[in-house]
Amino acid sequence: MRATLDGDVVRAAGDARQRFHDARGYGRASGPDVTLARVEAAHLLYRGDLDAVSGMDFRSFFCDSVASEAGFAARFLVYADLRERGFYLAPAREGWPGSDERGARADGADEGNGSRDAGVDADILVFERGEKPGGPVAHRVRVVGEREELATGDLADCTLAVVDEESEVSYFACAAGGGFDGRTEYDLPDGLDADLLDDRVVCWSPPPALYERAFYGQPVSGRDDADVDALQLSLVEAADLAARGAVDLDADAVVERGRTVEGERFDRRLSVYRELRDRGVVPKTGYKFGADFRTYDAVESVAELPHSERLVRVVEPDHRFHPRELALDVRLAGGVRKRMVFALAGDDTNDYLTVERLTP
Amino acid sequence: MRATLDGDVVRAAGDARQRFHDARGYGRASGPDVTLARVEAAHLLYRGDLDAVSGMDFRSFFCDSVASEAGFAARFLVYADLRERGFYLAPAREGWPGSDERGARADGADEGNGSRDAGVDADILVFERGEKPGGPVAHRVRVVGEREELATGDLADCTLAVVDEESEVSYFACAAGGGFDGRTEYDLPDGLDADLLDDRVVCWSPPPALYERAFYGQPVSGRDDADVDALQLSLVEAADLAARGAVDLDADAVVERGRTVEGERFDRRLSVYRELRDRGVVPKTGYKFGADFRTYDAVESVAELPHSERLVRVVEPDHRFHPRELALDVRLAGGVRKRMVFALAGDDTNDYLTVERLTP
Repeated sequence: MRATLDGDVVRAAGDARQRFHDARGYGRASGPDVTLARVEAAHLLYRGDLDAVSGMDFRSFFCDSVASEAGFAARFLVYADLRERGFYLAPAREGWPGSDERGARADGADEGNGSRDAGVDADILVFERGEKPGGPVAHRVRVVGEREELATGDLADCTLAVVDEESEVSYFACAAGGGFDGRTEYDLPDGLDADLLDDRVVCWSPPPALYERAFYGQPVSGRDDADVDALQLSLVEAADLAARGAVDLDADAVVERGRTVEGERFDRRLSVYRELRDRGVVPKTGYKFGADFRTYDAVESVAELPHSERLVRVVEPDHRFHPRELALDVRLAGGVRKRMVFALAGDDTNDYLTVERLTP
Repeated sequence: MRATLDGDVVRAAGDARQRFHDARGYGRASGPDVTLARVEAAHLLYRGDLDAVSGMDFRSFFCDSVASEAGFAARFLVYADLRERGFYLAPAREGWPGSDERGARADGADEGNGSRDAGVDADILVFERGEKPGGPVAHRVRVVGEREELATGDLADCTLAVVDEESEVSYFACAAGGGFDGRTEYDLPDGLDADLLDDRVVCWSPPPALYERAFYGQPVSGRDDADVDALQLSLVEAADLAARGAVDLDADAVVERGRTVEGERFDRRLSVYRELRDRGVVPKTGYKFGADFRTYDAVESVAELPHSERLVRVVEPDHRFHPRELALDVRLAGGVRKRMVFALAGDDTNDYLTVERLTP
């Protein structure tokens, strides 16, 4: 069988169409022949199904492809890994199976190097298990190296395949939204006596329900040996309660203190905190998990506190995600049976992004 | 009983010495009276053992102390938490129990506000369980708020008490050294054929022992369906092997590529990698754990790979640790039963620091 490199594709004739395309879902049919993307041809060489492409063996063709297509090595590793997992797949590329609907831009613009098309949001389409190329898509896979920083937009509704420096692949499912289902209800008191002390607030003789039902603060009086009835509040809790009139503190003064100790990050965190409270979700500190908040959808009482469902990290809307930080956050959340949610706190609205580990 | 604020201490007369000092280990004896640090007096007020200090109740005295001593609120919370755990403790302060040997500088210089003395490496001394003040010290506790960044020197051989924004306390044991016990032995081949491809290296037809015993790289041929005999190497692995003559690549060219894709961080990581290999430790990527490396003290063969004992994060010698990142790293390491080691990679030498969660 003859396979020839032609620009950024490989054309194979003879029984290639039947053997590679029809039987095993490689490439696109071109009349009696088959057209293969470089990654597909490399995989056929790697498996020994092709002996050479334009005289190049696997090593030569692989080196040539790395030199020709940005990110080829990582894309090849993910392609091979997914094939090995028993899926049919196709490069997300105009004319290849599955790409007509969404995989490529309508105008078909192409960078010409076979890497991700401009406007295309994936590198590889993985079809549902048992489905042939062109069938329902299970994963729209975006391939990145562990050193590539990712913009928020890169993470919306895709499966991220991160190739680490030792060529192992980790998969993450990224979905817009936080999945919150807030069902916590409570009434707040009015104008409680409180002191702004350094980087926290102490509220004196609060009604027990403020802690026990609404789950604000941490009681000083909860300690065994205390003779004092007081509730310690974090600055975000206090700023929220002050704005709602529940504690007798100037909300602006609390926010100002927050900015002093934390910078503008405080405003972002407060914005997310308030929105979650408005939605019936209870955010508490996520410090022990290295996050901004852990959250509870439904608190009936602190005495019967459920497991917190999510960890929330607050970032700027134009935050660049580093795959290593992503691995750390998502792994930790998974280890404590919580979902990892990134809150992209903007000036007017907050967006949420849920990221989970995935085994395709 | 009368207790009076006098500068930055509280003096109590009457039966205070017997009741507070002799029986319960508060303060320092001054003839028939007792001298209390603010944190001690506040704790006695908080428990109801003292009614007032110079006319101030707990609330007034606490607010006054927060205004007078930097970091007082956090220090008080840790003091109260440790007392509740049943320990005797003392402020690390000249003249207080336990501080003569190491707690205070010989010249007794004091910032005058009762906070940590210059040259003193702790805030609170915790005596071994069952031991009275002045007995053997179990923990030299340094108190920090979760927003305070820490220099490397702050973390050497102390117990760190981090007070989070909601006033919960987390403890970390910090110890110099990585605790490595490298016992891996192998021979390396000479001048193997390899290609530098993008941000990784592929070594062709390597001797099996390079992977199976020395645990370098990731075999392409390890995959079920491959027809290719090759070992993928990360750039640090390849730079190390090139410098040792095991692969036929210019070591400088590999390092240059590493710097291109990773910046000067590459040099720091390579320095730690090489040192660990020299010590018989096997470092592999820690990407899945969000770290630079996971390490194995003793690899006999990859077929019988032990559990990796440590996660290593490589930082600059003047790295500022943020308590939230510390919590994240240490929590994750604990969750996968590994120790968290920070490698402070300097120009000439690398220092190591082990941090673990601790329940006093």
